[in-house]
Amino acid sequence: MDDNSQSITPMTEDECWEFLSMQPIGRLGTAVAGEPEIFPLNFAVADRAIYFHTIPGTKVAEVAVNARVAFEVDQWGPEIAYSVLVKGTAEILETEADIAAAESTDLVSYLDDTRDTWVRITPDAVTGRRLRR
Amino acid sequence: MDDNSQSITPMTEDECWEFLSMQPIGRLGTAVAGEPEIFPLNFAVADRAIYFHTIPGTKVAEVAVNARVAFEVDQWGPEIAYSVLVKGTAEILETEADIAAAESTDLVSYLDDTRDTWVRITPDAVTGRRLRR
Repeated sequence: MDDNSQSITPMTEDECWEFLSMQPIGRLGTAVAGEPEIFPLNFAVADRAIYFHTIPGTKVAEVAVNARVAFEVDQWGPEIAYSVLVKGTAEILETEADIAAAESTDLVSYLDDTRDTWVRITPDAVTGRRLRR
Repeated sequence: MDDNSQSITPMTEDECWEFLSMQPIGRLGTAVAGEPEIFPLNFAVADRAIYFHTIPGTKVAEVAVNARVAFEVDQWGPEIAYSVLVKGTAEILETEADIAAAESTDLVSYLDDTRDTWVRITPDAVTGRRLRR
């Protein structure tokens, strides 16, 4: 960086989760047979996992089940930007306890939500960057 | 959809490119050895291709070269949202003509840009959805 007033610094894991908990929209990245896909999604955070809704039989459900996924959230302000990447494994929730945990999140969908299947991403790596300009 | 005032409709390819040309930030999705990654990026559009800057030897450069990629851009307003997905192949630009085409785009980077390698995504599919609520 030529200009010392600009910087890119890593976020702590706590800062990443705080940021994730404030954002309504993230992007799910999947890879099936070497073919990457990205799906924008409403999501919620609970106990350091990512929760979202989907519909059984849809592409999102298909690729997210038992698959390695990436989940990315970013925000760009006039002077500061944040970008957080979660890497982990997605699974459709089936037990009563898991579904109750998902239902208790504060997930708000952009459109009225008729989706009835919950997916949880269990992270194994969470990284974030803070850009100042 | 229970509420008829809400809708999800496909965008035409022209509408997708018009939308892409107005947005500064997109997300590059890659898949290497079944491992999805997402990188938020500044980008520009010219002649129905996506252009962005990177640094040789970085992860973005590594995974984007000769690889299948996804590129996603979305925008969420109070009453309407847009989401466009480009599927295609990324390549590092090496010929003078290609680099000149890239330099002539109006790419603006969030931070002062010291990146000197251009990447172009040549799309083979562009799809978009308009959500009204």
